[in-house]
Amino acid sequence: MDIAVIGLGLIGGSALRALAAAGHRVLGHDADPATRATARTAAAQAPAPARWQVAGTIRDAVANADLVVIAVPLPAVGTVLDELAATGYQGLVTDVTSVKGPVRDLVETRLRHRHGALAGFVGGHPMAGRETSGFAASDPTLFTGCAWVLCLEPGTPLADWLELAALVTGLGARVVPTTADEHDRAVARISHLPHLLAAALAASTADDPLAGTLAAGSFRDGTRVAATRPDLIAAMCGGNAAAVRPALDAVLAALTGAREALDAAEPIAALRDWLTPGTAARAAWPPRPGPAIELPAGPDALLTLGRAGGWLTGVAADRRTVTAVRPAPG
Amino acid sequence: MDIAVIGLGLIGGSALRALAAAGHRVLGHDADPATRATARTAAAQAPAPARWQVAGTIRDAVANADLVVIAVPLPAVGTVLDELAATGYQGLVTDVTSVKGPVRDLVETRLRHRHGALAGFVGGHPMAGRETSGFAASDPTLFTGCAWVLCLEPGTPLADWLELAALVTGLGARVVPTTADEHDRAVARISHLPHLLAAALAASTADDPLAGTLAAGSFRDGTRVAATRPDLIAAMCGGNAAAVRPALDAVLAALTGAREALDAAEPIAALRDWLTPGTAARAAWPPRPGPAIELPAGPDALLTLGRAGGWLTGVAADRRTVTAVRPAPG
Repeated sequence: MDIAVIGLGLIGGSALRALAAAGHRVLGHDADPATRATARTAAAQAPAPARWQVAGTIRDAVANADLVVIAVPLPAVGTVLDELAATGYQGLVTDVTSVKGPVRDLVETRLRHRHGALAGFVGGHPMAGRETSGFAASDPTLFTGCAWVLCLEPGTPLADWLELAALVTGLGARVVPTTADEHDRAVARISHLPHLLAAALAASTADDPLAGTLAAGSFRDGTRVAATRPDLIAAMCGGNAAAVRPALDAVLAALTGAREALDAAEPIAALRDWLTPGTAARAAWPPRPGPAIELPAGPDALLTLGRAGGWLTGVAADRRTVTAVRPAPG
Repeated sequence: MDIAVIGLGLIGGSALRALAAAGHRVLGHDADPATRATARTAAAQAPAPARWQVAGTIRDAVANADLVVIAVPLPAVGTVLDELAATGYQGLVTDVTSVKGPVRDLVETRLRHRHGALAGFVGGHPMAGRETSGFAASDPTLFTGCAWVLCLEPGTPLADWLELAALVTGLGARVVPTTADEHDRAVARISHLPHLLAAALAASTADDPLAGTLAAGSFRDGTRVAATRPDLIAAMCGGNAAAVRPALDAVLAALTGAREALDAAEPIAALRDWLTPGTAARAAWPPRPGPAIELPAGPDALLTLGRAGGWLTGVAADRRTVTAVRPAPG
C-alpha cells in the first residue's frame, strides 16, 4: 500500500516506522523543516527494507497515496484537512487524535467535496501514549499489542473500515471497533479523568513541604501524569469537554459518597463497603483475553464486540469474517 | 541495644532484620505461631552477626529490652500496650503504625502507670509501604533512604526522641521530626487520599468493558493502589478520619473548580490555569536534598526542620546537635 503520514511526532513517527517495517511504501511529511530533516536522516539509517521517504509538502506526500494518516494535534487537524481537500485527494483517510467526535465533525465539514460525508474516512486512536514526545522518541514497535480504536459510524463504509482494520492488525495492534461517541466517553473515564485527579492530588501538597517529604509510592503513582504539560492536558480534556463533564460528575458523586462514609456511625465499615466496587474493578483489570473467535464482518457484530471490551486480531482476506477476542469472564 | 519487636509482618520483620544487621540484640514476637516459626527458621539462615531470636510471649520478648518496637496493625495496638503494661516494662517504646494521633491517645490511656503520660514513648512511622505483606516479604534494606517519622510532642522527653533518632538514622533512614497531628494531616494528603481517588477512578469503569480495554498507563498508575484490600484501606482512612475529612474536602473543592473550568467560555484556557499549580507541584517532587547542615538538638529547631520538609541524617554522640538536610529551594 502507498501511505502518507502527515505529522511526524511520537505517534506519526512511530506509524511511519511501523508501516515501513510492515512492507508498505510510506511517505512522511511534517510542517517543521527540522523534523523533516531528522526523519530523512533516520530513513537513511533504517534497515533497507524498512525505509521511508519524506516529502516537503502535503501535496507531494499524498500524490500517489492510497491512504493518508493524519497524525497532527487536534488544533491542526482542520488545516491539514483543508490542505488535503485542496489537493483533490480521494483515497482513504484516518487519524490518530485522542478525541474522535470533534475530528468526525471536522471531516464532515472540511471534506464535503467528496462523494459522502464520511466516505473514505475512518477515525482512529492508538492507545499508546508515552511521557516522551517527538520524532526522536518514535519507535516501530510502539503499537505492538496496544489497543487501536477504529471508529465505525453509521456513515462509515464497511469496506473502508475493514481495509484499515487489516492494516492496523498487521502492525500487531488490537483493533477496537466503536463509535466516536462511545470512544470519547470511555477515554474521558480512563485517560482524561486520571489527569484531572492527578493534578488535584499534586496541587494538594503545593504548600506543604512536610507532605512532599513524606510522600512515597501511592503519591508518586497517583500524580505521575500531572507532570504532563498543562496545555496538553487542557487541550485533551477541553477538546472532549462534553464527555469529561459527566465523567467528572460521576467521580465527584463517588467521592462525596466517601466523604459521607467518613461521617458514618461506623466509618471503617462504611468505607469498606464504599471501596469494594473499585477494588473489584481494579482486580479485574487488565481484562484477560478469552479464546480466539471468528465473527461475521458486519457493523452490528463489530460494535457489539467493542462494547463487550473485545478486539480484532485479524481480518480475513475476503473481508467477510474477522478473528477476534473477547475478555474472559470474571 | 536490646530491642524487642512485637509483630513480625512486613514492617516488623524488616525492622527485626535491619536492627539485627545493625548490630543490636533483637528479640521478635508475633501472636501467630506460624509467623514465629518462619521468623525462627529465617534467623538460622541469616548471616551469623545478623541473627535474631524469637520469643513465644511478649513478656519473654521484653524481659531484657531497652526498647520495644510495636509493629502490629492499629486495631491490635491497645491490646499490646495492655500486655506491655502488665509486664511492668519501663523502657522506651515506639511504634510503626500509619496514624499517629490515635496511637498517642492509646499510649496516654494505657501506659498511665508510667512516670509521665508520654515519657518513654516516641511514635514512629516509616514511609515504606509495599504491595506485598507479611514476614516473607520482609527485607533488611527496606528502610534505606526512606522517610521515617518520629513524633516530637510537647510531652515527649527530648532525650528519648534523640535516642530513637540515633537508632533510626543508623538504619539509613531519613528521620522526619513532626507532631502526631501534623503527621496525620500530611499522610491524609499523600497516602490516604490517593487510595480514595484510585478507588473512585477504578469504580468508574466497573460497568464499562470498552473503557477497561482502552485503559492504558494513566489508568494503570492512577488506580494501582486500589488493588489494596478494602479492609486495609478502610482501616487506614477511617483510623485517620479527622484528617482525611478536610483533605478530601479540599480535593472535592479543587475538582469542582475543574468542573467549572469545563463550563467556562474558554474551557481550554480555564483548564490550563486550573492545572498549572498541580503540574508545578509535581515537577518540584520529590524534593531535592540541600547541603548537610548542623542544627541544635532542640524541639523548636527540629519541628521547624520537619515543617520545612527537612530530615535528620544523624545525631551527635553527645546528643547536643544533629546533622540534617533541608530540601533545596526551587
